[in-house]
Amino acid sequence: MIESGAVSHRQLFRIYFEDTDAGGVVYHASWLRFFERARTDWLRGLGITQAELARTRGQGFVVRALGIDYLRPARLDDLIRTELTVLEVRGASLHLEQRAFTEGTDDRLVDANVRIAAIQIGTGRPTALPGALTDRLRAAATLSRELRSDAT
Amino acid sequence: MIESGAVSHRQLFRIYFEDTDAGGVVYHASWLRFFERARTDWLRGLGITQAELARTRGQGFVVRALGIDYLRPARLDDLIRTELTVLEVRGASLHLEQRAFTEGTDDRLVDANVRIAAIQIGTGRPTALPGALTDRLRAAATLSRELRSDAT
Amino acid sequence: MIESGAVSHRQLFRIYFEDTDAGGVVYHASWLRFFERARTDWLRGLGITQAELARTRGQGFVVRALGIDYLRPARLDDLIRTELTVLEVRGASLHLEQRAFTEGTDDRLVDANVRIAAIQIGTGRPTALPGALTDRLRAAATLSRELRSDAT
Amino acid sequence: MIESGAVSHRQLFRIYFEDTDAGGVVYHASWLRFFERARTDWLRGLGITQAELARTRGQGFVVRALGIDYLRPARLDDLIRTELTVLEVRGASLHLEQRAFTEGTDDRLVDANVRIAAIQIGTGRPTALPGALTDRLRAAATLSRELRSDAT
Repeated sequence: MIESGAVSHRQLFRIYFEDTDAGGVVYHASWLRFFERARTDWLRGLGITQAELARTRGQGFVVRALGIDYLRPARLDDLIRTELTVLEVRGASLHLEQRAFTEGTDDRLVDANVRIAAIQIGTGRPTALPGALTDRLRAAATLSRELRSDAT
Repeated sequence: MIESGAVSHRQLFRIYFEDTDAGGVVYHASWLRFFERARTDWLRGLGITQAELARTRGQGFVVRALGIDYLRPARLDDLIRTELTVLEVRGASLHLEQRAFTEGTDDRLVDANVRIAAIQIGTGRPTALPGALTDRLRAAATLSRELRSDAT
Repeated sequence: MIESGAVSHRQLFRIYFEDTDAGGVVYHASWLRFFERARTDWLRGLGITQAELARTRGQGFVVRALGIDYLRPARLDDLIRTELTVLEVRGASLHLEQRAFTEGTDDRLVDANVRIAAIQIGTGRPTALPGALTDRLRAAATLSRELRSDAT
Repeated sequence: MIESGAVSHRQLFRIYFEDTDAGGVVYHASWLRFFERARTDWLRGLGITQAELARTRGQGFVVRALGIDYLRPARLDDLIRTELTVLEVRGASLHLEQRAFTEGTDDRLVDANVRIAAIQIGTGRPTALPGALTDRLRAAATLSRELRSDAT
């Protein structure tokens, strides 16, 4: 188990019509799409491609639980920044914090707390990820924590 | 080959926030979702379930081509009616017309012309549907055409 | 303030291709769409139409916070049932529990806990709903609680 | 009126879970979302922001008609490239061709032909865009045509 409080991944998203609703703001479920894109690209940056993981090992990640607070709305054409922090890496699960901000500011728009499980596709049963992968996830989390310590 | 001009299937859809965009109207891609739901339920009414077709025969339907005209917008809470007309049934393809109206009126909102192919899942190659299925599709199209003839 | 533990609203949803992802199951954000449709139709059943509320009073509902547990997956063509229970009605907010089941069973698929706020559209500021509306919401919650008491 | 056959805008899109369906490929309506993002960013590159156009002039763009051919599927984690070509610029409408390819190749996945109208938001009536905007759109189309002439 590892715990970390440093941001591991930042990503920018533009708000398009598809993301909004007739209330004039980002539809509440769209934020889950942004956060998933960010998780996918964070994993890709660590050399973990989900399509390949499925093909080679029949394994995948699923969201087990999600807590989300909507603090402020975003609107069409806004540029938002998401930040991902690894809270915990276990053999068959990840616990992440993901936040969204107005880019160029520290104005928080949405806070999410996400529990991810590794499963065997087909059965849906929890499964341990290859040790090499969890090592890489832990190393990345530790590194980002250390970088933050240096910065302070 | 069979050609028919009678409506085979009608279905109602309520417009929810998820279907709209910041322009205050139904997002243009949402209409494709309504039309696909209508095709799925029309097939189900004929005893053709896509999940079962995939499981038992490894076959599926895909959209090959689509022409769509957006005539009038729909808005949150509107109730719309879609109508599906079979234009042609071949061994490995369907040609359909799908229209959307404001329910309770003949005000056309969207017209679509949809070409569907049957494929072998996995390879994506065109494949002939079981004769029993195409017979059922043709019979349904003929029936709806005759019902219309009787009505006129 | 009112608290209630009885189901106020049940609704069925069919799973279409649009709701699924390449993992073969319902995409995790799709459940938020089903739950919102259910809230919208529950309110409509109480005579509260969101489009009208926006037009006549410039008021709307937004999701403030959401906790969601994904217990089991659903798949293409499945028929699911959602159940909505009012936990609390305040002047400017609602607290709801929404659950999804495989229809015809008590197998829980997804549990959600949803906090809704009434806002003034434009400013986004919290606003009190008309007393007649909150009275109706409270009466509905009480009624469903009493019906449940009678049933036990 | 101006006609042009040169690509004005290229954009890359990664395929995420949200874009796929249980068939294992990109859901057919998702391509409309990619093409709209591409149009939005092409306009932004020309200094035309839709949120600002709505705020300052009450004008917006809507899709009037769409023809789309699905040639090959794309899958999770694929990187695709869209290309936008201006076919015609009129005072109150645009006619565009948009194509999608597997990035790094000339393998065409999807071809679309899109007619866009400028409307007055609220009434939905067709409206002429400011001359400065149509001049900019025409100049951009001419420029890309000339660049292509130079290249041949």
